[in-house]
Amino acid sequence: MPDLDRLETYRTDQSKLGQALSQLPATFPRPQEAYAAPFGVVGFGEGWWPAELLAQRIPATLAQGTTFVLAGGFGLGRLQGLITAAREASSRVVIAGPGEEAEIKVDFHPLSPYRYLRFVLEASGESALGSEIDAALMAERERAEPKVATPENPAKLLAWTLLERTPIWVVSERYPMLAPALQQLFARIGKSLSIAPPPSALEFFISALEARHEQGDPLLAVVIGEDEATELALEVLETRVAGIERLAPPKARGAIPEAVAYWYRMAWVSYYLALLYGADPGDHEVMARLREAAQ
Amino acid sequence: MPDLDRLETYRTDQSKLGQALSQLPATFPRPQEAYAAPFGVVGFGEGWWPAELLAQRIPATLAQGTTFVLAGGFGLGRLQGLITAAREASSRVVIAGPGEEAEIKVDFHPLSPYRYLRFVLEASGESALGSEIDAALMAERERAEPKVATPENPAKLLAWTLLERTPIWVVSERYPMLAPALQQLFARIGKSLSIAPPPSALEFFISALEARHEQGDPLLAVVIGEDEATELALEVLETRVAGIERLAPPKARGAIPEAVAYWYRMAWVSYYLALLYGADPGDHEVMARLREAAQ
Repeated sequence: MPDLDRLETYRTDQSKLGQALSQLPATFPRPQEAYAAPFGVVGFGEGWWPAELLAQRIPATLAQGTTFVLAGGFGLGRLQGLITAAREASSRVVIAGPGEEAEIKVDFHPLSPYRYLRFVLEASGESALGSEIDAALMAERERAEPKVATPENPAKLLAWTLLERTPIWVVSERYPMLAPALQQLFARIGKSLSIAPPPSALEFFISALEARHEQGDPLLAVVIGEDEATELALEVLETRVAGIERLAPPKARGAIPEAVAYWYRMAWVSYYLALLYGADPGDHEVMARLREAAQ
Repeated sequence: MPDLDRLETYRTDQSKLGQALSQLPATFPRPQEAYAAPFGVVGFGEGWWPAELLAQRIPATLAQGTTFVLAGGFGLGRLQGLITAAREASSRVVIAGPGEEAEIKVDFHPLSPYRYLRFVLEASGESALGSEIDAALMAERERAEPKVATPENPAKLLAWTLLERTPIWVVSERYPMLAPALQQLFARIGKSLSIAPPPSALEFFISALEARHEQGDPLLAVVIGEDEATELALEVLETRVAGIERLAPPKARGAIPEAVAYWYRMAWVSYYLALLYGADPGDHEVMARLREAAQ
């Protein structure tokens, strides 16, 4: 098995995802002008999760003032219709994304959800919230970077725990849609399968492993946040899955900074996991091919 | 293995879920009065998916006129705050659910999402759409009922195909949120695990099986609908999963009737699968216990 505390292990990271991870906090496109309220936001592709997070502050709809369109790749022809509708409804439409139609350039990248989020926060008068997020990410980075040796590095330790396991995300309702965001991140960087429950997750946790107990054997419940539903789910799951791993709370204040901090920590974990499997944690060739096919 | 064409196999169905399945089309609480537009809808627990479907017709929000609250169990204390907010915003609040606060009684049941949906359609002037749904369900029932022998019964055949496999739902964007709805149904009735992808599913399908090809061994891609993203996903998945099963389109017109018809067909499939595993397809005792704990 590769040693995460040896430099040569990091040669597998041909696409330099580790560097992008280290540099992520506070790296995003800065607005060059003032935009008029009221604000709205719509997102797809890599933009779906930032749009969900932003919907806690900015309506997830076309606004009369400024609508931010987070056009995160794999448009499959939907983008043009959306832009037309936004231009009819809003006095200003700001498109962010990797494509030619975007005035705010955000490259197609596993970490782009953070960049979309931060740009819109800055552009919509929420820079204080943005700074809270960045502070939370910097605190995560301090403990998760490669130079922190495995025994003191929670991200490296969790990667080892997840090796040859399939995570099932058990997430407090304080962080809606974080589970599918982690499922996506863990696939994109960790190149591995995980299970996000449907809404009304308790029903699912109670019954999904009833018929075939062996389906629980490879599963590791990864627990984020604390609430009554989560505790009830764990009561059921603890006898059915291989293990339960509770993530320590991040140094952050507020549901959005906490959610983004968990996401960033899991990005590090996914990165280390890919290295343990000997896989380049960045995008592979098939992703680029499909991105072109799915303009 | 139990024989799905022998009557004694159905003794396992202690909770009479088969009867509820057969009787489902057109069985729902009828509105006893006229409600005033504009309409809004919010849902949780078993009400989350009908609220998502209805959001294609009725805003998913508190309306000035009538707000329908689909209070589908596992409230965990959220219900009261929601009702208070709805009463402030709307001139009329109609609560449907199993609890005491509900004026429209909908029992806690695996098939209740249909009942919530149909009640609200009928109560909001969408009874034509409701009838389309019922016709689609009746057409499904004709081929899926126990009296139709296995060789002619697509639901029984699909249950056999899914035996000892884990479905991964590959669903066209024509049916948003159908994948998690099926994940929930397959757990609740089939007592089995399945995988719903996150939004922007193509990214996930491309990368989730890269590091450990053996993670694809138990997976069966169940394909619903046809579009470019689905075809691109299958191009990637076909070499990585154990098999691909394309569902035949239902006899239905329009995205909502089609989605509900697929859901109803998969309810039958999940029912037969539970019987093949020798499990009662209805709710088991732990569900009732947790429902009480999670008022």
